[in-house]
Amino acid sequence: MSRAIAIIGGTGPQGMGLALRWARAGETVTIGSRDAARAQLAAQKIRERVVGAEAQVSGLQNSAAVAATDLLVLTVPFEGAPVLLKQLKPAFRPRSVLLDTTVPLAASVGGRASRTLGVWQGSAAQQTAELVSKGVSVVAAFHNVSAEVLNSDDDLDCDVIVCSDDPKATQTAIELAVKIPRLRGIDGGKLENARIVEQITALLIGLNIRYGGHAGLRITGLSESAYKSA
Amino acid sequence: MSRAIAIIGGTGPQGMGLALRWARAGETVTIGSRDAARAQLAAQKIRERVVGAEAQVSGLQNSAAVAATDLLVLTVPFEGAPVLLKQLKPAFRPRSVLLDTTVPLAASVGGRASRTLGVWQGSAAQQTAELVSKGVSVVAAFHNVSAEVLNSDDDLDCDVIVCSDDPKATQTAIELAVKIPRLRGIDGGKLENARIVEQITALLIGLNIRYGGHAGLRITGLSESAYKSA
Amino acid sequence: MSRAIAIIGGTGPQGMGLALRWARAGETVTIGSRDAARAQLAAQKIRERVVGAEAQVSGLQNSAAVAATDLLVLTVPFEGAPVLLKQLKPAFRPRSVLLDTTVPLAASVGGRASRTLGVWQGSAAQQTAELVSKGVSVVAAFHNVSAEVLNSDDDLDCDVIVCSDDPKATQTAIELAVKIPRLRGIDGGKLENARIVEQITALLIGLNIRYGGHAGLRITGLSESAYKSA
Amino acid sequence: MSRAIAIIGGTGPQGMGLALRWARAGETVTIGSRDAARAQLAAQKIRERVVGAEAQVSGLQNSAAVAATDLLVLTVPFEGAPVLLKQLKPAFRPRSVLLDTTVPLAASVGGRASRTLGVWQGSAAQQTAELVSKGVSVVAAFHNVSAEVLNSDDDLDCDVIVCSDDPKATQTAIELAVKIPRLRGIDGGKLENARIVEQITALLIGLNIRYGGHAGLRITGLSESAYKSA
Repeated sequence: MSRAIAIIGGTGPQGMGLALRWARAGETVTIGSRDAARAQLAAQKIRERVVGAEAQVSGLQNSAAVAATDLLVLTVPFEGAPVLLKQLKPAFRPRSVLLDTTVPLAASVGGRASRTLGVWQGSAAQQTAELVSKGVSVVAAFHNVSAEVLNSDDDLDCDVIVCSDDPKATQTAIELAVKIPRLRGIDGGKLENARIVEQITALLIGLNIRYGGHAGLRITGLSESAYKSA
Repeated sequence: MSRAIAIIGGTGPQGMGLALRWARAGETVTIGSRDAARAQLAAQKIRERVVGAEAQVSGLQNSAAVAATDLLVLTVPFEGAPVLLKQLKPAFRPRSVLLDTTVPLAASVGGRASRTLGVWQGSAAQQTAELVSKGVSVVAAFHNVSAEVLNSDDDLDCDVIVCSDDPKATQTAIELAVKIPRLRGIDGGKLENARIVEQITALLIGLNIRYGGHAGLRITGLSESAYKSA
Repeated sequence: MSRAIAIIGGTGPQGMGLALRWARAGETVTIGSRDAARAQLAAQKIRERVVGAEAQVSGLQNSAAVAATDLLVLTVPFEGAPVLLKQLKPAFRPRSVLLDTTVPLAASVGGRASRTLGVWQGSAAQQTAELVSKGVSVVAAFHNVSAEVLNSDDDLDCDVIVCSDDPKATQTAIELAVKIPRLRGIDGGKLENARIVEQITALLIGLNIRYGGHAGLRITGLSESAYKSA
Repeated sequence: MSRAIAIIGGTGPQGMGLALRWARAGETVTIGSRDAARAQLAAQKIRERVVGAEAQVSGLQNSAAVAATDLLVLTVPFEGAPVLLKQLKPAFRPRSVLLDTTVPLAASVGGRASRTLGVWQGSAAQQTAELVSKGVSVVAAFHNVSAEVLNSDDDLDCDVIVCSDDPKATQTAIELAVKIPRLRGIDGGKLENARIVEQITALLIGLNIRYGGHAGLRITGLSESAYKSA
């Protein structure tokens, strides 16, 4: 019943970690990469780490992954996203949902990972929305989930704040969050709010540097009944 | 042994709430206001709400409060801060610590409280640092603590992320946070990082609108031993 | 044959200066103000300064001016624009063109006029576009024309860079520019580019402070034939 | 009597164009490049284009150029500047003046050249100032001078707006501007103002796309006597 998930640029730590967790949850996952062989190798590594039922993880070249799937997750570095999205644009299926996890870290242009760049469109996610075809719904999500913990066997302990102009896409992203044990998906409102959520990543990276550990984020104080019914 | 605390612009909800909580913790608190009588009335209201030992809360005109105290908390709206700080500048005691709680909400210029303004200096706190005398240490803190919960008798449930270029001032702000039950103070690094922490307030205001409740923030995953020794 | 022009918030120096120049060019101009009497007084002052043919300048309350005219110019301070636009929204005629001259100077929140605020929507003009009804076309223009020179009898010497998502509205603004002797209208592209043009005002204000005079802007090096045919 | 000028990353169009113009003005110029041979080839090309007196243009590896000269011009793409500056940092001579011509175009991260990135420190120039040793004075200048016209035999027609926190460095940059016929150097104030001047480049690039030609900028209306005495 679940929709298959394709992770564009999925061989990096963020993509691999998410693929591992969704594979463990029984989802069908495609790792996308510039290089199909590399994608297949990554998929095999994930399959080896999923215990019990056989993991449904395969590898494809990015554009093939995009053409085959309508639930997509973008996990490339910010500075590589525009060129890749322009290449992939013709391959997108209409009405796809694209989860954008990218963060405009200053490291993209040689600066620090604990600082950000200001994006002309407001946020990395709004830039992405400008670069895909009209029918594709962009959701900003999963910026603040530690790639290192995702790739470990430890439990996560954080919330996923989700921003989108398409309520259905928000709902989809929240469902993808709660498939991972102890993650919670929170409706962060319109896509324009992604600018704040993206910046939090830089703050957490700074906390990791100062304190050690893998900083995450929890939202407290929300009316629980409202949260449940959302 | 504790230093007295003066809250500039302390008759608004944020100032009143912090005063109440610090008064309950046994601190000596001065409420500052443009109008001394209004400050005294506010102080009296706080004293009435503190049960048990007599609360050490008094009211003074803002500049008198600044002149009498070297631990200051700024709780005025963003759009009023520059003019007020220029007026108060001569009154600051050298080596004062100024906690800046202000947030550059778009509401300051007629926009939404769930959006922010970009501040030329980088953040409201950096703007404040430019406006005070050299010896005054500015700390950004307490942006994300719900004024409504502070003014209630409920427990809080959130972290206070503290940013400053003066490690002693950071330490002071962390100590002020932990005087309030269940608050934790977290070293958010340099003052420049305040821009991210300030924006989180706008995100939380949006969550309050969507979910109801009083959204707060917890940082998870920090190495606990590092946190304790900090 | 010319369309009548209404200047919202037209009793300030920018509005008065533009009204004077367009009145001298033979245009029909309505000065809008919160207060109808003040608007009429302002209109009379303009009429007295126009020599020769009788000037077609009248005064109306802002909402009446908006309801009566479909070529509007917004000349209020940035911090007052959102509230005013929300009030006027029901009065706008469909397919109106609204020229936005506002600049998000840091002075709006107590800072310097030679610095700017970052606007969530990207620019003051994009904020305006969000606040008016769908059919209204917003054009950013006339930010960098000195109000002092406009109100004098001296010739101007500058270009008006015009930004809009509606090419017809761009054309209208360029035509309004060239009605004023020695002004030239330049197509600055989409409305999103207004953010740069707005900031130039802060730079020019700084130049006025350092050098004296009334700094303006000329674009050189454009292919003249292309400019003429535009 | 003139100080020698070294152009870091000088083999690109901006660096070559400035080198040509200063060489024609009789200045001693060093082209710096990652590759010494490439720098020497570039220097030879310039020498061949200077008619009359023998041009004093040589080529050096970037760090050797920096070590040998205390008047430096940075003409690398924005995204390459931080890494290069960190490498060169030990080579800088104390009290050097570094002219920063870089512009944070969105093209640095795959976006459009007619849009910009927001820089954490406020501007590319302020980022540069953070990356060099304390004694080095950074001046933002020459952002808006067309590289194509610089490399042609045509006259230029524009102003160079100069921003720096060191008035002597501002003066130096203004003198470098006026060595090129028909350029004028204008004091744009503190280094923080570079953010506006840098963005103007993106606006001019957009004008070039729309109109053709090589857009430049002239400031009008400055008190001429104040300008002369500056």
